[in-house]
Amino acid sequence: MASGGVPEATPAGPSPLRDWFASTTLHILGIALAAVSLGMLACALLEAATSRRDTLALGASALVAGAAGGLLWYLTRPSAIRKRDIFATVAWTWILTTVVGALPFMLAGTFAVPGAGFVEQVVNSVFESASGFSASGSTVLTDFESPGRGLMMYRQLTHWYGGMGVVVLAVAVLPFLGVGGLELITAEAPGTTSDRLTPRVSETARRLWMVYIGFTACATVAFFAADGFSSLYDAVAHAFTLAATGGFSVHADSIGHYDSVAVETVVIVFMVLGGTSFSLHWRAVTTGRVPYHRNSEFRSYLGVLAVASAVIVILVWLENGLPLGSAIRGAVFTVVSLGTSTGLSNATGSGSPGDYVTWVAGAQLVLLFLMVVGGCTGSTSGGIKVKRMQVLGLVMLRSVQHSQTPRAVIPIRLGRDTVSENVVSRVAGFFLLHFLLVIAGLLAVTALGGELETSLGSVVSALGNMGPALGEAGPTSNYAVAFSQPARLVLALLMIIGRLEILPILLAVVPYVYRAKDLTRVARR
Amino acid sequence: MASGGVPEATPAGPSPLRDWFASTTLHILGIALAAVSLGMLACALLEAATSRRDTLALGASALVAGAAGGLLWYLTRPSAIRKRDIFATVAWTWILTTVVGALPFMLAGTFAVPGAGFVEQVVNSVFESASGFSASGSTVLTDFESPGRGLMMYRQLTHWYGGMGVVVLAVAVLPFLGVGGLELITAEAPGTTSDRLTPRVSETARRLWMVYIGFTACATVAFFAADGFSSLYDAVAHAFTLAATGGFSVHADSIGHYDSVAVETVVIVFMVLGGTSFSLHWRAVTTGRVPYHRNSEFRSYLGVLAVASAVIVILVWLENGLPLGSAIRGAVFTVVSLGTSTGLSNATGSGSPGDYVTWVAGAQLVLLFLMVVGGCTGSTSGGIKVKRMQVLGLVMLRSVQHSQTPRAVIPIRLGRDTVSENVVSRVAGFFLLHFLLVIAGLLAVTALGGELETSLGSVVSALGNMGPALGEAGPTSNYAVAFSQPARLVLALLMIIGRLEILPILLAVVPYVYRAKDLTRVARR
Repeated sequence: MASGGVPEATPAGPSPLRDWFASTTLHILGIALAAVSLGMLACALLEAATSRRDTLALGASALVAGAAGGLLWYLTRPSAIRKRDIFATVAWTWILTTVVGALPFMLAGTFAVPGAGFVEQVVNSVFESASGFSASGSTVLTDFESPGRGLMMYRQLTHWYGGMGVVVLAVAVLPFLGVGGLELITAEAPGTTSDRLTPRVSETARRLWMVYIGFTACATVAFFAADGFSSLYDAVAHAFTLAATGGFSVHADSIGHYDSVAVETVVIVFMVLGGTSFSLHWRAVTTGRVPYHRNSEFRSYLGVLAVASAVIVILVWLENGLPLGSAIRGAVFTVVSLGTSTGLSNATGSGSPGDYVTWVAGAQLVLLFLMVVGGCTGSTSGGIKVKRMQVLGLVMLRSVQHSQTPRAVIPIRLGRDTVSENVVSRVAGFFLLHFLLVIAGLLAVTALGGELETSLGSVVSALGNMGPALGEAGPTSNYAVAFSQPARLVLALLMIIGRLEILPILLAVVPYVYRAKDLTRVARR
Repeated sequence: MASGGVPEATPAGPSPLRDWFASTTLHILGIALAAVSLGMLACALLEAATSRRDTLALGASALVAGAAGGLLWYLTRPSAIRKRDIFATVAWTWILTTVVGALPFMLAGTFAVPGAGFVEQVVNSVFESASGFSASGSTVLTDFESPGRGLMMYRQLTHWYGGMGVVVLAVAVLPFLGVGGLELITAEAPGTTSDRLTPRVSETARRLWMVYIGFTACATVAFFAADGFSSLYDAVAHAFTLAATGGFSVHADSIGHYDSVAVETVVIVFMVLGGTSFSLHWRAVTTGRVPYHRNSEFRSYLGVLAVASAVIVILVWLENGLPLGSAIRGAVFTVVSLGTSTGLSNATGSGSPGDYVTWVAGAQLVLLFLMVVGGCTGSTSGGIKVKRMQVLGLVMLRSVQHSQTPRAVIPIRLGRDTVSENVVSRVAGFFLLHFLLVIAGLLAVTALGGELETSLGSVVSALGNMGPALGEAGPTSNYAVAFSQPARLVLALLMIIGRLEILPILLAVVPYVYRAKDLTRVARR
């Protein structure tokens, strides 16, 4: 954490105290906490203006986060960030933001249901915070009525911060990080590479956040209109979820609460757009031309959603015996929701058409596959990402071709670009790492008492930042029922690991590359 | 099937009829059927000398297989085999041998249990034959007492033929196949490459079969001694299973029947040796030196078995509450049995220490992992193979290193050898193909009525030529109970696909490489 703590001889800053720590890591953590604190403050004001119940909890949390963030910001001085500190910076910023972000739930006693001890409240608060910031949307909340509107809005806001990323936000504020800044964005952003929208990194980060804010505003307006202009609060709350492809809702029955085709249509459209690269959105907005159809990943992404929808409509229509209309409505919404790793549900109750845990096993298997795939590179969605899956598919086909012509040189191409073999190998390695982590997570969660099918769905869901899973952890159920306390902590950690695409957390634990080399030597023997 | 059917202008053979088909494919199929016919004949004699019940069924089958095989052999003339016919030859030889190999079960009415119609009998016979030749060892046999000793021995013999492979047997007989012959062996043999023991291919095939026969003889003697010299019949029957790492037993409760530590120890030793490369055995026998410890794959293989045993002993001791002795006995036997894809069981009944479906979920997950891994390259075991897993592990570690140094050239090394990037890519592609096939198989089996956990275990088990699976298809259960008829056929096909490591069957269905190129083009868009 205190990496990069070596003081450097530079011109004195505005304050003598500021030279104490020349640590970009702590500086970025400070900015992230300060930003979260502002969100808490806004929600405290909303709470004070509406339900009032949780004003104090939100205000106190804002104070703590603001004080901690402000002090770190003030006392540290960012410098050029060292390569090996990049992942540690991202990892620790996320872990500590998650912990601090759990404060409002703890102070408000959101999880103080009858019989819940202090430890259980802490575990649930951290779980909800991790699920929020990682934009997963799994919840342990059972009582959606008692918490005030401000607190519920704060819960939605954690999605929004995590969707585009607090580190990207910090980079947007810091003008002088150079190459290190781009690597910080890349380490936090989902996908293989980050598009550099401008030569200046902080400008790129600012533009990403601008298009993100614009996206949220559009989603708010559209949701408000579709909902019959009934509640701006609902519209803003769900816009946060849609922009982040999160999954939290202010209603226990999620989008099923509205039971409205109009609302579901708006939600589907914005989920699809949320699972699309935000660089593409930026280009669409700034150039006035539509670049989507020329993007190989975007076409495959739509193709996957369309094929999965068709397969599931047929399965639940014929095998579950749902009426065709209900089958289409349930299947398309669920496929888009899980295929973009959002996790909203249009189930109107246990056993209703949208309650996919009641679907036949084949349909659930397709959903599990969608959870693994996720959305596009550079979007706010989770999963392995469509582009990586394209590369993996081509590696598979190439192995078939190589069985005939073992020595042929066959490049992997996406659209007009040839993918370098180093990138191909990294993608394969990432997939294997993901696979291994699913097995390790499954081992841990089942050892802590989880049932196999429920655990498999939940581990995949957590790593893919999905939200609801299979079995007992389905869209109309709750993680507090399905998993023991330690299992919930493991899942919370998996969500953060999945959001950061494994490597930052892994390398914060095993910080030196030479350790990986040691492992290589062991594996070679 | 009739590939390579172009007549060539060569000196006239001994018979004018022999020039009708210059087809190596049909010639090899003929030899395979003739060989199987000899086995049927031997078993018919055994049957006539002992129980007599199924003599006619075995004799008639021998006649049919012998006539078909002999005619094909006599009427066709092998020539240099074309590259694109290699996979088709292996695929069709296996499929047709499996079908003809089901004859004795059909004629003897082995599966004519009350209520079983003709179709069910055919399905079960083909399933048993596929499970036998692929050396899987999943069974739909419920009545182990009624069939005669000859028929039961024939069932064991199918393992033995399939273990080393009927195509390798045919190549051993054919002296002039050249390079095509080596590719035939490679296409049939499990693993990444075939060791060429001698420059002459048919000599290599002969040596492999010789060491295989020697192995079987040793296993027979050891089993006979451990069993207290009680039955040579039992010893031979299980030696066939051990050499092939099959899984069939002449007893309904498998090795649990003996309830003897001595027998279990012998079985464990020979299972471990059966999962080892037969080229290594050949070198050990011919040079008199022990080459095993210098083989990187063999060391990793023992390491995987040791670690998995230790983990499972701890899990079933602490979490299942088994006594430590029973835990060790149950765990080590099961780990070796599933880690070598044999599938024998030492469970003495449902719920006994060896009945691993009663173990905690974590232990079963480790077993599932072992099923995926399998034994060594060039052994008779199934699964992905340890060597491929080593390569995949190194690809994973390399992706971590590349996250720090994206442009570094990092070769993958096993022992002292550098693995070429084409091979690395093929291994990754094979893994992905395997993964995709598990998903496709799961979709099919669950759509045909299988329960998710049972189906997952069975599909992995079938593709890895394991035998028993998880859930309802565990070691003390039966596939006829757990799966519908069409699901059993899918599993039978998966066993053959798994035995031939996917590509031969895949390319027999999609025979031209340019089709793969077409697919590449589609995936690229």
